[in-house]
Parts: sequence; structure tokens; C-alpha cells
Amino acid sequence: MTSKQQPDAAAGNGLLDRRVLLGAAIGATLPGVSHADGLPIEPWMRTPGLPLAGYGQPSPHEGKVARIAASLPGAPGTGASRTPHHLLAGMITPNGLHFERHHSGIPEIDPDAHRLLIHGLVKRPLVFTLEALARYPMESRICFIECAGNSGSLYQKEPAALGVQGLHGLLSCAEWTGIRLATLLEEAGVDPRAQWILAEGADASGMSRSVPLAKAMDDAMVALYQNGERVRPSNGYPLRLLLPGYEGNTNVKWLRRIKLTEAPTMTRDETSKYTILRRDGTALQFCFPQEIKSIITHPSPGLALREPGLYEISGLAWSGYGRIVKVEVSADGGTSFAPAALQEPVLAKALTRFRIPWRWNGGAAILQSRSTDEAGNVQPTRAKLMEERGPVAQYHFNGIASWEVSGAGEVRHVYA
Amino acid sequence: MTSKQQPDAAAGNGLLDRRVLLGAAIGATLPGVSHADGLPIEPWMRTPGLPLAGYGQPSPHEGKVARIAASLPGAPGTGASRTPHHLLAGMITPNGLHFERHHSGIPEIDPDAHRLLIHGLVKRPLVFTLEALARYPMESRICFIECAGNSGSLYQKEPAALGVQGLHGLLSCAEWTGIRLATLLEEAGVDPRAQWILAEGADASGMSRSVPLAKAMDDAMVALYQNGERVRPSNGYPLRLLLPGYEGNTNVKWLRRIKLTEAPTMTRDETSKYTILRRDGTALQFCFPQEIKSIITHPSPGLALREPGLYEISGLAWSGYGRIVKVEVSADGGTSFAPAALQEPVLAKALTRFRIPWRWNGGAAILQSRSTDEAGNVQPTRAKLMEERGPVAQYHFNGIASWEVSGAGEVRHVYA
Repeated sequence: MTSKQQPDAAAGNGLLDRRVLLGAAIGATLPGVSHADGLPIEPWMRTPGLPLAGYGQPSPHEGKVARIAASLPGAPGTGASRTPHHLLAGMITPNGLHFERHHSGIPEIDPDAHRLLIHGLVKRPLVFTLEALARYPMESRICFIECAGNSGSLYQKEPAALGVQGLHGLLSCAEWTGIRLATLLEEAGVDPRAQWILAEGADASGMSRSVPLAKAMDDAMVALYQNGERVRPSNGYPLRLLLPGYEGNTNVKWLRRIKLTEAPTMTRDETSKYTILRRDGTALQFCFPQEIKSIITHPSPGLALREPGLYEISGLAWSGYGRIVKVEVSADGGTSFAPAALQEPVLAKALTRFRIPWRWNGGAAILQSRSTDEAGNVQPTRAKLMEERGPVAQYHFNGIASWEVSGAGEVRHVYA
Repeated sequence: MTSKQQPDAAAGNGLLDRRVLLGAAIGATLPGVSHADGLPIEPWMRTPGLPLAGYGQPSPHEGKVARIAASLPGAPGTGASRTPHHLLAGMITPNGLHFERHHSGIPEIDPDAHRLLIHGLVKRPLVFTLEALARYPMESRICFIECAGNSGSLYQKEPAALGVQGLHGLLSCAEWTGIRLATLLEEAGVDPRAQWILAEGADASGMSRSVPLAKAMDDAMVALYQNGERVRPSNGYPLRLLLPGYEGNTNVKWLRRIKLTEAPTMTRDETSKYTILRRDGTALQFCFPQEIKSIITHPSPGLALREPGLYEISGLAWSGYGRIVKVEVSADGGTSFAPAALQEPVLAKALTRFRIPWRWNGGAAILQSRSTDEAGNVQPTRAKLMEERGPVAQYHFNGIASWEVSGAGEVRHVYA
């Protein structure tokens, strides 16, 4: 392959230097670009358009841009819906498409009746109304939330015939605004014996998790706003716990109670679930940060390549340990990698969009991405992760994923 | 006033140092915080909640968080709707609440039929389908869009009895993703005689504006995505021109045509409108960048203060000339100012959230904010702006705005 490399080549099988300007070279070969000087007057230019509205909605032509939901039989609110990252761009997930994972549906909470209780090992147990919380100083943070079970099907022996949404859609990113949890805990007065908190939601399952007090005092937030507006019901209206970088369900939605404790409470959701079973039968418990990871969103299954030529490979990288410092992309199944460009601003514990140009020669290719964070963590191969974890694990899959591009331009999920 | 200042005072009438941690001190006086250790089980905890959905919506309890629309009689799509910044937080405006300004309603565009034409002084006129545009390299940018007419009622002789939304709501901020316009222009081949572009929308008014080619080649974008999902119909679906920092209507929505020209085209929307009429009868034309500006969103009219005590003053600052470097807040009508904290990330030509703690003593106060950008521009007083522009101007009002807090805690718009 090296012998055929062009001056702008950055890695094998057509990957180009991230600084290559694709523009002028792309259009020459595109069927959808024609050399013409004129446009018809379309019908929508001949008549006044639709009226103004109080709250806008997407175009009816974009109905396919939706979350895909899977529920338990007879329990339509219990399950998950996944963000369609193959149809999105940028790093922000719009509120209507933020992934959901509910353990007993979305509670219909009356915000005037909702309260937040802070108790346990505190000097003064306190109960807050939403009106009172609105008086506290706020801060904003753009950060991702990823379900611990995201990409879990990559633990399976055979690659699932799914795309970005089905495999990796339990992942979203928003600008959250709220009150530092430390502010409220300090007001209640932390007893020196307290080492953990229990956070409980106001849904019918009473979903609850234990989290170290150190995290609660560090960057935890009681989030009231999501991308500017009040948190959506499916994301915890009227308020949720935000633990930047921690596995999704510790970011307890419909937050009603925080209890300070000496030790973890050992709730159902941290004993029967959300532990990582290992090869030898032992389980890893309280694995909080989501590990260094990345996915290629374009191209991906469902987004076939129409003809050989220049393409932009684009995807998302993130780490619960901090900022992304590098994403490398391979078009030859991991034999060679080239660095992708990272879209600014690159923020700690947020999704980071990466992009790299690629000249597809019409042959078979296997696309992979590998990310590195500021703590030095490097995304492992699937093989290495499987060796460590074994086939019984369910959570925290962060291995390198692979898309195979066929000679016909079809894209499918493979192990490579 | 100085004699009564406390150690944490930063300016007159109760403004505190931006680093003061309000938390522990606030709750002691708040009616909504009670010392209790227990919560009732609410009805929504006793029954499974609502099902998962393909595309989510805000809580029905948040129906008041809506744009306020004003249309011309008999033309329900012609007019504007305003973002309710007094009910939002952070810097991102959710897509459903991004302000709208339409000159002939929202066209119902079929994306498969829509084309973008680039012609005029180019080597090769080109027509692009959306499918072809999807092949080009993309970039993302968080930036504000502000209508040139935003805050225009502050040119009036008497202060309008309106709040943040009515006065300043023609302003929003989103993460936009699309193709650099320079990429497409280079592909068409720019004729050296070209100095301007004409950008035309596919609405029934054929809204069109002339913009210098230098801006088109700098940071202009053909935007396809808004906060991750496809641009909303009210914001130009399937694509709009994005000219970071430039007055709103140059960011032409439903973009169908870009023509390269030697000189401005002198369209209706840059001759009869969107010029700044001055005291002496002359008009400023082609005033593109939105000037340095800021507004206080909390407190503001409609958000009354219930009782004396500690409050966080919060607002938004922005400049079409770059990054915000400083926002100062006054509680005594401009006699003294204290610097506010700026929420990271502070991005060029994006909204920047600022915050400062304030001890309201229950007396009258006049709140103001004054912003400074990296180019050294400082937001002028209203008096200075009026002196320069005179009372006949309509556009580009960027003077300091004032909220008066009465002894009863009511907030109203005043001139000060």
C-alpha cells in the first residue's frame, strides 16, 4: 500500500492528512453537483409560508430522525431509547433526541409538589422547594451522559447487525445548568463521618445509587436546565443529579433525596445491576467513570457510500476522565492510524467531534477510531478488553469498534 | 454608601465579589428551605410512568416557556417571535425557542427538490443537491444570531413597559454545523472581479442581502445542523447562511442562491430596511457586525424579588467582534460597577453567561450591565448612543439597559 501512497496520505487505504482541504476536489466527482446557472421557482416561493409558533418543531421531512425505543413487554416506560448519532452532527444532542433509560417509566411530576431532601449524616436535614433552589447560584457545563450499558452488545461473540444508534445510542451531550451539589451539602452541614451519598429518584422504581462524597463535593450538580430550557421529563424533570463523566444511571433523574452515609447503601441498582461480571466470577462494583472511547458516526451502517471518491470520516470521542487529546482513525482495520482533527472547543467530559478526510478507492475497508484522553488513557482494542473482562461482562464496553465498507459501499458492523 | 460596605463588597448597593460563595448564606433566609427529615410518597411514585418516545417534548408544566410572536394583520407568518431569556439558563438556546423573524412565513420546502446555486462572477456556476452537500467536510461553531432590530424599542423616548423577552428576545445561540462557504466558492472558482455576494432565500419574499466577499471567505458557513439536528424550518430548513456576528437577516434562511458580484446588489432589505437612520437624515448602510452588548436576565421584569437577601444576578453578553473579556454590573444605576464571573467556555461571537452575587437590602436599586470585548469595544450608555444616533434610528441598539427594582421587589424597565 505504501508504494501507492499519495503526497497527502496519512495512513493506509486512503486516509489523508487531517489538514487536507477536501472542498475543491470533492465536487468534480459528485453526481449531485451540476454545472448550471439557474433554478426553477419552487411552489413554496409562490405563496406565503407557515405562521410563527410559540414552540418550534423539526421539519416533517425529518421524521426518521428519532430515538429508537425498546421496552419490556407490558411495561412501555421501562427500557431505553437511543440517540440517532448517524443522523446528527456537532457535539450537542438536541433535547428531543437525548437518550432515555427508565426503570419504571417517566413520572408525571408536579413541580410545585416536588421537593429535594438532604439528610442522613448532616448537621441540619433540609428540604428544598424548586422556588428556593432557583435562588441559588448556578453554573453551566457541557457534558456527556453515557449509559453504563452502552455498546454492551459488543461483548457478544458475534457482531450484532446494528448501526451507531443500536450499538452506541445510549450516549448524549448537553449544556446542563444548575446548582453545585457541594453548595447544598455545605448548607446542610456535612458530618465528618459521611463518606458516601445515596441519591434517589422520584420515579415508581425509586431508582437509587450510592456515590462517593468526594465526587458530590467535586463537580456534581443538581441540574435544572438542559440546553437552556428546563430539563425534559425523560431526563429528570424537574431536576436531576449530574455527575460529569460517571456512568449514566448514577446521574439520578427526578432527584428527590440525597442521604449522606458512611458506606454505600448497596441498592438494587448497584448490586443486581451495573456491576461488571468478570471471567473468574467476581464482579467489579462501583465502576463510576465512563472510560476513554470513540465511535465513527459517518460513514456507518445505513449510510452507504455511493461511489469511490473523497469522503469525510466523522465521529465522537469522550472520556469520563477529562479532555480528549487525540483521536486516530484507521481505514485498514487497525494496521495503520492517522490523527483526526478535533473540533474546538474540546471540553473535559464532553463529546468531542473528530474528522478526517478519506479517499475511498472502491475497495474493501475497515474503519476504526482510537481515542486518548488527557490522563493518558488509550481506547483498547476489543480483543484486549475481552481478554481482560471475558464474555460475561455487560457494562462499560469501551473497545475499538469496526465498520466494514464493502466494495459496493455498504457499511456493516464487524469485529476486526 | 462606602461606609456601610461589608468586607465582601465589590460595588455600591450590595454588589458582592464575584468569588463569594453564596450557598451557605442563602438558605438561612429562604422560605422554601425547611428543616425537616422526610418526604411524602407522591402519587407519581406509586404507579409506572409514561412510555418512551421517539422525539421528546418539554414538560406540560412548562407551557409558559414559549416564544411570543407578533405578526402583521392578515399575515400570520410575517413578523417575529422572541426567545424567553428570563426563563432560560446557560448559553445554548434550545431549538424550539430560537427566535424567528420571517418576511413571508416559513416555506414548506421539500428537501429533495431544494437546490443551492452559486453563480455570478465565478468560473463555473454550480448547483448542489442536499445529498451532494452532505459529502463535503463539515465544521461546527457555537454562535449567537441577533436581529438587527433587537432592543430597538430602547430608541423610544419613553421606556417600553416590557421585559427581557419583549425588549431583547430577538437573540439566540446554538451550535451550528455545516460547510464553510469558502469551500463551495472555491469550487465554483471566484472571479477576481468579485467583491460581494448576494444571498437569497427560498421563501416567498425572496429575502436577500449583499455581504462582502471577504466575510464569505472568512468564517461564513452553509449551516445544515442546529444543536445537532437538522436546522428547524423556522431557522431555514434545509439550510441557511451563517455569518457569525453579523446582523440576523444577513444569515439568510432557506438559502437557495449565492451570486458573486462586483458591488452590493441594493436589495429591498438593505435599502428600505436594515439601515440606521441618523439625526442628520443620512443613513448608515451595511452595518454588519452586531455591536458589543449585554443584558441582565435574572432578575428582570416578571421575576420579582420576594424578600431582601442574597441573590445571583445573571445575564448574557456578546459581541460580533469576538470574545467577551469583561462584564461589569451595577446596582446603583451606573455609579459604581463590579466585575461579574464569566461562565466558561467563553467563545468568540457566542453568548457568554455572566453571574455576580448581590445582597438586596430591600431598598430601590437600578441594575445595569456593561460588557467589553477582546477588540476593546465597550458597551455604551444609552445616553451616549442616543446622542450619536438620535431618536430616528431603529436598528443596532446596543446601549446599556436598566432594570429598576422597587422597594416591593418588583422589577421594571427604566432609562437611567
